Amino acid sequence: MFPAWRWLKRYDSGQFKADFIAALIVIAILIPQGMAYAIVAGLPPITGLYASVLPMMVYACLGGSATLSIGPVALISMMVYATLNPLYQIGSPTYIQAACLLALLVGLISLLLGIFRFGFLIRLISHPVIKSFIIASALLIALSQFKLFLAIPLDIENLAAFLTSFYHYWRFIDLATLALGLSTIALLLGLPQLLRHTRFGHILPNKFLAIVLKLIPLLVIILIIIITYVFALPEYGIQVVGEIPAALPPIAMPFWSWQMLLQLLPGAFMIAMVSFVESISIAQATAFQNRHQLNSNQELIALGVANISAGISAAFPVTGSLSRTVVNADAGAKTPLAGFISSIMMMIASFYLSQYLQLLPLTVLAATIIVSIWKLVDFKPFIDTWRYSKADGIAMWITFFAVLFIDISTGLILGIASTFLLMLWRVSRPHIAVIGRVQGTQHFRNIQRHQVITTPELISIRIDESLNFLNVHTLKEFIIATVSQHNGLKHVIINCSSISNIDLSALESLEDINHQLQKLDIALHFSEVKGPVMDKLQYSTLPQDLTGQFFLTHYQAVQQLQQDGSSPP
Amino acid sequence: MFPAWRWLKRYDSGQFKADFIAALIVIAILIPQGMAYAIVAGLPPITGLYASVLPMMVYACLGGSATLSIGPVALISMMVYATLNPLYQIGSPTYIQAACLLALLVGLISLLLGIFRFGFLIRLISHPVIKSFIIASALLIALSQFKLFLAIPLDIENLAAFLTSFYHYWRFIDLATLALGLSTIALLLGLPQLLRHTRFGHILPNKFLAIVLKLIPLLVIILIIIITYVFALPEYGIQVVGEIPAALPPIAMPFWSWQMLLQLLPGAFMIAMVSFVESISIAQATAFQNRHQLNSNQELIALGVANISAGISAAFPVTGSLSRTVVNADAGAKTPLAGFISSIMMMIASFYLSQYLQLLPLTVLAATIIVSIWKLVDFKPFIDTWRYSKADGIAMWITFFAVLFIDISTGLILGIASTFLLMLWRVSRPHIAVIGRVQGTQHFRNIQRHQVITTPELISIRIDESLNFLNVHTLKEFIIATVSQHNGLKHVIINCSSISNIDLSALESLEDINHQLQKLDIALHFSEVKGPVMDKLQYSTLPQDLTGQFFLTHYQAVQQLQQDGSSPP
Repeated sequence: MFPAWRWLKRYDSGQFKADFIAALIVIAILIPQGMAYAIVAGLPPITGLYASVLPMMVYACLGGSATLSIGPVALISMMVYATLNPLYQIGSPTYIQAACLLALLVGLISLLLGIFRFGFLIRLISHPVIKSFIIASALLIALSQFKLFLAIPLDIENLAAFLTSFYHYWRFIDLATLALGLSTIALLLGLPQLLRHTRFGHILPNKFLAIVLKLIPLLVIILIIIITYVFALPEYGIQVVGEIPAALPPIAMPFWSWQMLLQLLPGAFMIAMVSFVESISIAQATAFQNRHQLNSNQELIALGVANISAGISAAFPVTGSLSRTVVNADAGAKTPLAGFISSIMMMIASFYLSQYLQLLPLTVLAATIIVSIWKLVDFKPFIDTWRYSKADGIAMWITFFAVLFIDISTGLILGIASTFLLMLWRVSRPHIAVIGRVQGTQHFRNIQRHQVITTPELISIRIDESLNFLNVHTLKEFIIATVSQHNGLKHVIINCSSISNIDLSALESLEDINHQLQKLDIALHFSEVKGPVMDKLQYSTLPQDLTGQFFLTHYQAVQQLQQDGSSPP
Repeated sequence: MFPAWRWLKRYDSGQFKADFIAALIVIAILIPQGMAYAIVAGLPPITGLYASVLPMMVYACLGGSATLSIGPVALISMMVYATLNPLYQIGSPTYIQAACLLALLVGLISLLLGIFRFGFLIRLISHPVIKSFIIASALLIALSQFKLFLAIPLDIENLAAFLTSFYHYWRFIDLATLALGLSTIALLLGLPQLLRHTRFGHILPNKFLAIVLKLIPLLVIILIIIITYVFALPEYGIQVVGEIPAALPPIAMPFWSWQMLLQLLPGAFMIAMVSFVESISIAQATAFQNRHQLNSNQELIALGVANISAGISAAFPVTGSLSRTVVNADAGAKTPLAGFISSIMMMIASFYLSQYLQLLPLTVLAATIIVSIWKLVDFKPFIDTWRYSKADGIAMWITFFAVLFIDISTGLILGIASTFLLMLWRVSRPHIAVIGRVQGTQHFRNIQRHQVITTPELISIRIDESLNFLNVHTLKEFIIATVSQHNGLKHVIINCSSISNIDLSALESLEDINHQLQKLDIALHFSEVKGPVMDKLQYSTLPQDLTGQFFLTHYQAVQQLQQDGSSPP
């Protein structure tokens, strides 16, 4: 319940040094990201700093992963925007309160799911759907930044809304803002190349270079803040972050009403699901290395309390960030204390740095977001998935288009629903084969795939799926068809090596098949029935009614039945 | 497309004689049943006769089963009542028109489903749900008859409504009607006993006795009609069928409006599903015997046109009747022409007999229904199912209570939904076992179930389910747990003998597991991968990335890896 003890009781100064350095580097990345993602969520940049203070501290105490870095994340911020934008006036106090309330709800939902051991819910979302979901939302997030990048109002609930609003306002694009944004992108993309591919870069030791590369966004931002100050850019109509109260995160229960609660609930649930999926999949990778199990319910609880803390500290929903977790690990974080330290540093930063940050042009933040997000937009997964499995491919495209053209949450729901239907569809169409013995072996193989031995009065059938009401009809029809084609048939043997469960519908169909075959003087046999299945069958009348027998191996079955056949009646 | 040719071209007088006798017997049962079920549906008794004329003829031409007897059926009539009762004033012209329109819709839906090959839809309903559905509705049907049996108005949308209305009206029960009803039940139950267990019965040859037993309802009805006529029972307040127009089924398009159409659509869809399920499961049994395949799509088409014909001939939705199909087969029907003949006889009956039938007391019909339906009300299936499989048991109870306390269609939908959820739930919790070799064999078994041989640096895992996004997490967690328990582990072998499909989510998790194990210097191997699965894996990067190898048999894998282990590096 309180994993912190695990590492606290054997903590030493060496670990502290490592944790401290890691924390410092994480902060350097967190500050620009936090403000940027706050803007993605349609909130004041400072809330992005708040969003990293308490949650990090809480996760450090309750979380199971040593390196997972909790805080604002692009995808979640986007979902916050998608949830709140239709309901409240963006930028209004209600909107900001609603964001806190949303975090609170997300937290409560995760907490309850964790307490009541609903961790398995994560399994309801398949990888192709998540991928497609992330790619499509990344596209929307990148697009959403053009609002700041071009300094024109754009509606980004979905692609259609974006295009129409763009069509209306493109004449009013502010070229100065655009220029500044573009040059920021140039810097963000150019500097790394410069460091990597010039002699200058190679002076630095590799490990250090890697860290410098990570710090580039911060450096660029500092540079531009200076420029903005020196050349008084705001006077040229460049929008900047503006007035930031130099304060610690204010601890207060967000304003709420039942009506707001009900309006936010669906969105909150979706966000809770996604933040859980995102952070558990990051945490799981590290869990492997530390050779300790990750309890998904415990993670839900940690994430829940973290979000509640975000809700009461004027922030918005948070989750584990992949980029920062990787940095944290690379920088050598040893224990969750690293997160704890970053959180304290963040508190200090939000207090002292705010005065400098207010000079930061919004278009620059937009540029950093576009650069960092654009990497995610990649269509290769769609092609690969389609090649590997059509069903997964279809689910992927459904998710993609639903997210882009309806909205983020609906997209996710439709994606999930489609995977279920496609799975039921697959289960309902099992692979059934007539099998024969491979010459000179005891192995049996599909007669269509291999050169095998068969006998006229005996047919062996293998079904590669557990039997249930969705697919037993296929088996029945298959047997009717096979029987109708072969005259002089005496035995049908069903190979059950792939059957790990038989539900009642299937059981009754088997009894019916047995009964019908009996009338045609054909005996039904089963081979290689698994232990658990056999146990269950004892509760049924099939073993008594069965005209044939149960055989341990298919080879035994065929051998014995052939002998009986050849011997005189 | 027109199966009739199959038997028409080799039809002879012998077959005709058999078909004619069968037809005659079927009719004798059909007349009382038809009128009774019409009343169940809240319609004039004559429509029950109409409902058997055209549909039978149509099915004879298009249907795939030789003996299936199409016509009014208790369950469907009940659903018709459940659909129409909330919408229209029972007995009103609109109600009757709506019934025809409903049949038309049911027909169109079935027809379209058949044309577009949606026959597989039948698989969406599991046996436990169907059983529970039939038992619960039988209960409701029986209860619904007390309206006529006690001559008081009763609301029978669900059990609660029934009880409240009964509480209101029980004082007004008409004792004369009740007495007549009870004596009818006494006759219907008593006469068979008399015939079976007294010397009188044994005079008759068995086959003939069987037929006589089937005719009892008709005989009782004739007897009571005579009594009613002689003693002028209507004057004592006994309600009779009353005025029946002596006419052939009037062919006419039922009155319709878009509004009605939309109101009836959901009900129509449910009825189409149920009638399909009922008639296909009856037809399938016979198909087996005639050793010809039954095309479920063709059956849908036949059923569809049959219902359309019902809709345009002043009738209501129909389907295959189990009781009459059995009688038809026992009486020796050889070809669908039997159905064709019954249909013509029915036409004559509905024309000439109507004048006698109008003296039939309603309570007598109610009594026949109660007697025939009550057989279906049986709770043994609930106990058996629960013993065999908890999941099926739960689905059964959900269906039962939903039908009784909400309404028939909602009950069916909830039942179906629950089976899906319970199946996904089961798929998400696969059986995973660490396996070891059984001393002196090449077989591997669960180490918890059997006494087996294992080696410290090697672990064999078997999962008894196809891998997909719902269950791969379980495997991953299982492996993390196992690995964390065993130090000095070198090899993990996954036995794939039960895996018939690996979806993309599972594939990626496997690659991840492989990648993570690699960092711990543990090699991942697969054994007994099925052909189709292996084919699919070729499209993935797993075979290249895999630290271990693929083995044909698990025995090979263990042998080889142990040798490598023992040999110096």
